[in-house]
Amino acid sequence: MASASTRPGPRATPRAGADVPTFEAAIARLQHYWSSRGCAVALPHNTEVGAGTMNPSTFLRALGPEPWKACYPEPSVRPDDSRYGTNPNRVQKHTQFQVILKPAPSDAQEMYLGSLEALGIDTAAHDVRFVEDNWESPVLGAWGLGWEVWMDGMEVTQFTYFQQCGSLKVSPVAVEITYGLERILMALQGVDHFKDIAYNDAMTYGEMRMQEEYEMSVFNLDAASVETHRRRFELADAEATRMLDARLPLPAFDNLLKASHAFNVLDARGAVGVTERQKLFASMRRLARETAQLWVARREELGYPLGLPEATPGTSSIETTGAAPTMAADCLIELGTEELPPQDVASAARQLFDAVDAALAAAGLTHEGVCVGSTPRRFAIDIKALSPGQPDVEERVRGPPLSRAFEDDGVTPSKAAMGFCKKNGVDASALERDGDYVWAVVKKEGRSASAVLEDVLPKIIAGITFPRTMRWAANSEAAFSRPLRWLVGAHGDRHLAFEALGVHSGTTTRLLRTRGDVTDVHTVANAAAYHALLEKEGIVVNFEDRMSRIWSDARAAAKSVGGDVPESSREGLLEEVANLVEAPTVITGDFDEAFLSLPKEVLVMVMRKHQRYFPVENADGSLKPHFVTFANGPCDEGVVKHGNESVLRARYEDAKFFYESDLKKKLADFKPELSGITFQQELGNMLEKTRRVEGLVSDVAAVLGYDSAVVATATHAAGLARADLASSMVMELTALAGTMGRHYAREEGLPADVSEAIFEACLPRSAGDLLPKTPAGITVAVTDRLDTLVGLFAVVGGPKASADPFGLRRAAYGLVQTLVASGATCDMRSLVEIAATKQPVPVSNERVDECVTFITRRLEQLFIDAGNDVERVRAVLKERGNNPALASASVAQLVSADEKSLETCMRVLSRPTRLVRGKMEDGTDLTINEASFECDEERALHAAYVAARAKITEGCSVTDLIAAVCEMDDASTAFFDKVFVMAEDPELKRNRVAMCAAVARLPAGVLDFGELPGGL
Amino acid sequence: MASASTRPGPRATPRAGADVPTFEAAIARLQHYWSSRGCAVALPHNTEVGAGTMNPSTFLRALGPEPWKACYPEPSVRPDDSRYGTNPNRVQKHTQFQVILKPAPSDAQEMYLGSLEALGIDTAAHDVRFVEDNWESPVLGAWGLGWEVWMDGMEVTQFTYFQQCGSLKVSPVAVEITYGLERILMALQGVDHFKDIAYNDAMTYGEMRMQEEYEMSVFNLDAASVETHRRRFELADAEATRMLDARLPLPAFDNLLKASHAFNVLDARGAVGVTERQKLFASMRRLARETAQLWVARREELGYPLGLPEATPGTSSIETTGAAPTMAADCLIELGTEELPPQDVASAARQLFDAVDAALAAAGLTHEGVCVGSTPRRFAIDIKALSPGQPDVEERVRGPPLSRAFEDDGVTPSKAAMGFCKKNGVDASALERDGDYVWAVVKKEGRSASAVLEDVLPKIIAGITFPRTMRWAANSEAAFSRPLRWLVGAHGDRHLAFEALGVHSGTTTRLLRTRGDVTDVHTVANAAAYHALLEKEGIVVNFEDRMSRIWSDARAAAKSVGGDVPESSREGLLEEVANLVEAPTVITGDFDEAFLSLPKEVLVMVMRKHQRYFPVENADGSLKPHFVTFANGPCDEGVVKHGNESVLRARYEDAKFFYESDLKKKLADFKPELSGITFQQELGNMLEKTRRVEGLVSDVAAVLGYDSAVVATATHAAGLARADLASSMVMELTALAGTMGRHYAREEGLPADVSEAIFEACLPRSAGDLLPKTPAGITVAVTDRLDTLVGLFAVVGGPKASADPFGLRRAAYGLVQTLVASGATCDMRSLVEIAATKQPVPVSNERVDECVTFITRRLEQLFIDAGNDVERVRAVLKERGNNPALASASVAQLVSADEKSLETCMRVLSRPTRLVRGKMEDGTDLTINEASFECDEERALHAAYVAARAKITEGCSVTDLIAAVCEMDDASTAFFDKVFVMAEDPELKRNRVAMCAAVARLPAGVLDFGELPGGL
Repeated sequence: MASASTRPGPRATPRAGADVPTFEAAIARLQHYWSSRGCAVALPHNTEVGAGTMNPSTFLRALGPEPWKACYPEPSVRPDDSRYGTNPNRVQKHTQFQVILKPAPSDAQEMYLGSLEALGIDTAAHDVRFVEDNWESPVLGAWGLGWEVWMDGMEVTQFTYFQQCGSLKVSPVAVEITYGLERILMALQGVDHFKDIAYNDAMTYGEMRMQEEYEMSVFNLDAASVETHRRRFELADAEATRMLDARLPLPAFDNLLKASHAFNVLDARGAVGVTERQKLFASMRRLARETAQLWVARREELGYPLGLPEATPGTSSIETTGAAPTMAADCLIELGTEELPPQDVASAARQLFDAVDAALAAAGLTHEGVCVGSTPRRFAIDIKALSPGQPDVEERVRGPPLSRAFEDDGVTPSKAAMGFCKKNGVDASALERDGDYVWAVVKKEGRSASAVLEDVLPKIIAGITFPRTMRWAANSEAAFSRPLRWLVGAHGDRHLAFEALGVHSGTTTRLLRTRGDVTDVHTVANAAAYHALLEKEGIVVNFEDRMSRIWSDARAAAKSVGGDVPESSREGLLEEVANLVEAPTVITGDFDEAFLSLPKEVLVMVMRKHQRYFPVENADGSLKPHFVTFANGPCDEGVVKHGNESVLRARYEDAKFFYESDLKKKLADFKPELSGITFQQELGNMLEKTRRVEGLVSDVAAVLGYDSAVVATATHAAGLARADLASSMVMELTALAGTMGRHYAREEGLPADVSEAIFEACLPRSAGDLLPKTPAGITVAVTDRLDTLVGLFAVVGGPKASADPFGLRRAAYGLVQTLVASGATCDMRSLVEIAATKQPVPVSNERVDECVTFITRRLEQLFIDAGNDVERVRAVLKERGNNPALASASVAQLVSADEKSLETCMRVLSRPTRLVRGKMEDGTDLTINEASFECDEERALHAAYVAARAKITEGCSVTDLIAAVCEMDDASTAFFDKVFVMAEDPELKRNRVAMCAAVARLPAGVLDFGELPGGL
Repeated sequence: MASASTRPGPRATPRAGADVPTFEAAIARLQHYWSSRGCAVALPHNTEVGAGTMNPSTFLRALGPEPWKACYPEPSVRPDDSRYGTNPNRVQKHTQFQVILKPAPSDAQEMYLGSLEALGIDTAAHDVRFVEDNWESPVLGAWGLGWEVWMDGMEVTQFTYFQQCGSLKVSPVAVEITYGLERILMALQGVDHFKDIAYNDAMTYGEMRMQEEYEMSVFNLDAASVETHRRRFELADAEATRMLDARLPLPAFDNLLKASHAFNVLDARGAVGVTERQKLFASMRRLARETAQLWVARREELGYPLGLPEATPGTSSIETTGAAPTMAADCLIELGTEELPPQDVASAARQLFDAVDAALAAAGLTHEGVCVGSTPRRFAIDIKALSPGQPDVEERVRGPPLSRAFEDDGVTPSKAAMGFCKKNGVDASALERDGDYVWAVVKKEGRSASAVLEDVLPKIIAGITFPRTMRWAANSEAAFSRPLRWLVGAHGDRHLAFEALGVHSGTTTRLLRTRGDVTDVHTVANAAAYHALLEKEGIVVNFEDRMSRIWSDARAAAKSVGGDVPESSREGLLEEVANLVEAPTVITGDFDEAFLSLPKEVLVMVMRKHQRYFPVENADGSLKPHFVTFANGPCDEGVVKHGNESVLRARYEDAKFFYESDLKKKLADFKPELSGITFQQELGNMLEKTRRVEGLVSDVAAVLGYDSAVVATATHAAGLARADLASSMVMELTALAGTMGRHYAREEGLPADVSEAIFEACLPRSAGDLLPKTPAGITVAVTDRLDTLVGLFAVVGGPKASADPFGLRRAAYGLVQTLVASGATCDMRSLVEIAATKQPVPVSNERVDECVTFITRRLEQLFIDAGNDVERVRAVLKERGNNPALASASVAQLVSADEKSLETCMRVLSRPTRLVRGKMEDGTDLTINEASFECDEERALHAAYVAARAKITEGCSVTDLIAAVCEMDDASTAFFDKVFVMAEDPELKRNRVAMCAAVARLPAGVLDFGELPGGL
């Protein structure tokens, strides 16, 4: 427990500016603002909730067809965020202000920006950004797409188009806006610690709440009884279930909330293991789903007391304006959206380019190049010098058969012929006879480019695919990455009229967001005028241009403080930043040098992952206390820099708190705390798991062929490998598991190989991650995963269908990746059996078999993922699947084998294989008796066989196998040319079959040629 | 479960007047109003609370010396108030708006009235009243004095000067103001059902909350698991205790709140019996106390982060003004207070009269009569024609002894004599010699009446006593019934200057409350001007005048609707109403005739007890659908009438709901539900208790001497006597227990004697209540109490000191009252022993003895309460305490016996008694042997004895005993004159002692003369 003083700071910090609200005034202003926009001002819920979303005013009211508009402050309890009040930016109970609008209005973003102005925020001075955030609560069966709203790098609001809730579709879609009041007020009032926020004119926030914050932190982290909260969970779970049976959704939901809060306390106490978490989550998810269903059913039974939404009138279609170009002219098409996720910007731009390019080609429209510019809020498709229309074309079209084309007089066109003429706009006199048919040369008038585009653009736009799409309109199921809000098209000076995804094209665009005014639109005369407009606004619509600009600005900024941006920032980060801003404005910020004492991994992870900042390095790769970020468009740079610095400081304070409290202990001190983290009910806690792994390490090392030094290191590391799970830093930043373990091990002076093995024990953490390299690291990583797999197979079995709650696929995949990369050949089954001996439950042979098969399937997947041909992979695995490293080498050899040698092998092996097929099981004596040979060809083949046999050893390479078999080719060919295997003499026949069998068996243990294309 | 539709009423009822707020606007206005007065706007608590008081912002912040001002809305959950949404005025979750001001400002009432104006309430049109309400929460160890604020008869606010909290003194005193928002908004918007309140401009309250109200009602009343909530209570109780050990007051308090909510749910489910309630209450009380102590200790340790209150400057002393009267002049003294409780008005007026009258007499100030007018807000002391001052008086004062009064010359006064002269203002020449001393005639100048009053009034005011007093000032411990706010005194035109209880006198008074303006004061020139001022305002300051006015107005009003006010309303109600208003304004209201179908007892109880309305009756005593009430001062009578009618309708709707749902069942149907009500853990539930009583009735009836017909009726009644406890009406209006049982019994057609016995079984319900009259009723009532007493004595023993958690004193008192009134003589011990046989636990003889002794003590109390002399009571009880009815008759006889007869008896009995004292236990043979008589006096006494002995039978009256003993007087006198008892002859002596002993024993079983004054 931290011995933090709960004494708040000085009273009533003076605030910047006259219009800066106190904390209570901010709530009043938001209530007034949203009330004036039709929201009912509701009250916080009277049981603990983790977020405003969990208030029934959102969770339940978002469901069903009834309209709903409400807003309310919500004290949101997150026991995990307990910091004894010492962290300036984190409290276990923070105050959300929640707005729910259903159906989602088309100007929700602008209304939101208006609310910031109402709060006294000059949105022109600050950098307000909508940064992708796909909100999801698996427990609530809820998800939505939207954004974190960042103000100067600080997340101040969550803005979500609610798509699903309680596992039900949210229809009509609702908008949920959640303000983080403490953060907003700190920024507005310019204070560095939440305690210094002026709550009203007489008291600070700290004076109001500091003692509570301290005491509830102690409760959440140290004092709350685990047993009590387990019981509370169970009671609430059972009570909720009873209420569902009684058809009472609200009491059921209330009890779900109580269960959820009990869970959160347990979690903060570090008492929930992976598998227990799964179990409790499953309970809560079920309750959320059934409550939602029941609520919807009850509202329907009640006849929808709030009525149904009024049909929103569709935007009226526009008239095409402007004269169509008569000669080639530049064409511009703009799609305006709400802020798209970075990866969607890039992907959609590519798709648009391909589709437009292809459509123009298909339509025969000439142009001098298509170019698709893209920003988070728009796609600008430029078609250079697009021809005014399609050329006219003549086409020879087949008409009816001669036999039916004329009346009996052979001259008068028949009805069929007249119909054909009418359809193709030709005169009957122009019909030609050719072969058995009549023909006509038909002139097709080319359509204008506008007409073609108006026809094709709706399909192109609707055809763009995204990994995840959302609905947003009240009366439409149209889906896109984020809401499509406007469309403009101009060919020359002619505006295109089309409709896509329910949006009608118009003649105006929108520029940078200013002050929440949806009417701030600008007419687009033509392509050139459009680009002039954007340029004037500072919007760099071309992605490559924007990337270059950002990179050079970032480097220049870094240089200005004597450092540079590391080249590694190009990977991922640069592209992401370029897709986050339309008009990049560089901002250089500083942080306190004192934070440089934190591990670099931690500092960089926070900058890159949390804040999308470029770190600044010295020439030796060490960090400088600076960062570079980009605002979107013009802003008050001082304000934005200060804001970003505050955010980073808060995050670093957080990290420092964890780091320093962790450093007070040795890694071994965390180990006993693992007993508080359940692994799986029947398999015990993480401490017990750790002890199992420790006990298994030496046997596993032996199978992998490592010596006693490795065993010693691995055993030491195994005992500590999971210890960092109980450290504060890892509890907070789980992605640092292993990394922190190694760091703390080094800090306390453990041997380097032990430290490294501790780190490697958790590799690979995800697809594409590093793999263990040291023998000790490999040993521990392998042992840990074996224990996980065998144990879970024994108690719950393998994953079913797509569900894999325990991540067994990932564990097995990581296991085989590690074994393959290690190059250590081994008997997989033995490893599984060794692991089975230490489980706290009996493991049947059947389960061992299932487990081995499961692992082999992952191995197959691994090889296929690496681009190998599936048949070759299977050919190897059939024989060597039990030895991943050997199998891997074998696959590589087989893949690189030349086709000709393979064909030769197939030739050598196929006939003997086919001949003996079905003969192997009938008890025939397959001993080769050299005395029974009758001719030289038999003897020659036998000699060749013996030579090959000698070369094909147990671990031999595929290459050797192929070479050995190939060398039999001549003897084999001669044999089958001359010798009739199925001779009448029984012994002769038996002996020849035996030799065929021996040849056919040659590849056994190396490769199954039967799996290769064509088979044997 | 009611099958009420949860469909709310029509949307957005049009509201009266432009300034009428919606529900959400009302909250916003109150927040704005109180924020502008320095309150921090806090948020509701995030766990269920029963009231805003239980938010830590009140409960904990009220403690300790730190100042605190906050306000917040608080959804307050009272499971007991669940009505499935069908009751127009009652919801299980209502919205309080809570204000806490610490230290209490001197204009808190006026600030409150200002907040009503801010809400849009025209306080001049409505009847806003402060009606005594002594808020107490024994569970929280909290109490305060203050008021319910009534608006047109509806309680809209609770206004309390917080005196104690968590068993700690609240110092400085805090003011707590709690608005009931639903009620206020219904009144303001003029809607008849909470669901029709306009929540905002688009939705009604019902649309927002009706489904919740319905479902949570079902949960609270029908569906919540009793077992779950018992466990929740236990878990929270234990967790709170742990948090106290960890010195964390806030988490401890939070868990106390959770325990409290669990208790409330259990209670609403009808699952808490009397003794279980005691146990759970004790737990919560302990937690509240220890939490409060810990909070105060922690705040001190933290150094009082919010500082200490600034010293409020005392009101400055005034200058006396106006010329002192030179001749007799009327004097007026006014004490202005915040609204006093009715009984305190009456009592303080009496005390003031007595004290002033006595003080004037003592001071020798003549006058033509003192008269004390009193209203809830003022006492006006009129002293008619008070003399301008005391007369001058001459007094002869003793000086020093002659021996030390003069110098040696015998002429020159000594220093001592000079000192004496100086002190008394006389010249040395005036000294007189008289006896051993010198004397002087001293003239004392009379003080002015003003001076006398200024001197004496502070003591008189401070000396007024009340059953309960409160502190209110920040810097003073002054206590009064309610805060004393102003003082005025004028003798003639001269203003008195004095200070009492920290309040300085002034020259102004306040009239009726108008619009929350504490500066609305009026100068008081003199007594006549004062009365003119009050009269003009309509204030009737004389209590008797006010009573007459109210009574005649009430009757006139009742006559105007064709009825009359029942004479019984004079008792209690008239006086109470007269002490609730200063300026009575009669209002006649109506209610729906349909409600007349409810039992009259219910209708009248609601009118009288809850609303202080006068009912209106027809000549036959049946009710008319009208009531009469009195507003205070001028108002918009239509508005006030409508408001009062709404309140009554709501209360009647409530009663109707209960009544109708009860009538769907037979009384016997409620009986099984008694199993859900615990009586006491070891003694089982109320159903088990009922069955015990049923089983005991016949044996008890036999002891009481009743026949088998009584047994049959009593057994029938015993089985149903407690059934109404499970009825809705009684669960709501507990005072109707028994009454409703009888009513429902009659409704379902049970025999009249059974119905009556059901009613009588619960008599007497309180001191002064009716007693059972029918044999069956007596039998059940007696049996029930015997069972209670014996059972509880067996498991917990008798009450200790002043604590009597199970109400055993009341039970025993009721038991003996009943037995006495019944006149049924009986053997109390036998009854107790019979009851002991049926208990589910063994009852030791020791416990039976304790129980009998305890009951006898109550009997003694009963007789003493009736005004009987304690010695006579004891004289009877010593012999007949085991038979209450007989004892009662005996006491009456003894009390009415003439003193002379008693003296005679004492004379007859005292000598034999003294002679044999100590002789009875030594084995002396006390057989009277007539043969051993030696003289006639012996024979005569023996004959007298035999005659008396024959008259003194077991149940004989005390009168008979006295008469019989008196008749022995002559024989006795002669005997003791002549006969020497302690003769030398042993047989002679033995025989005489034996006769003395026989005489002494004569009163045994009737009376112990030894207890009478003087003894024997």
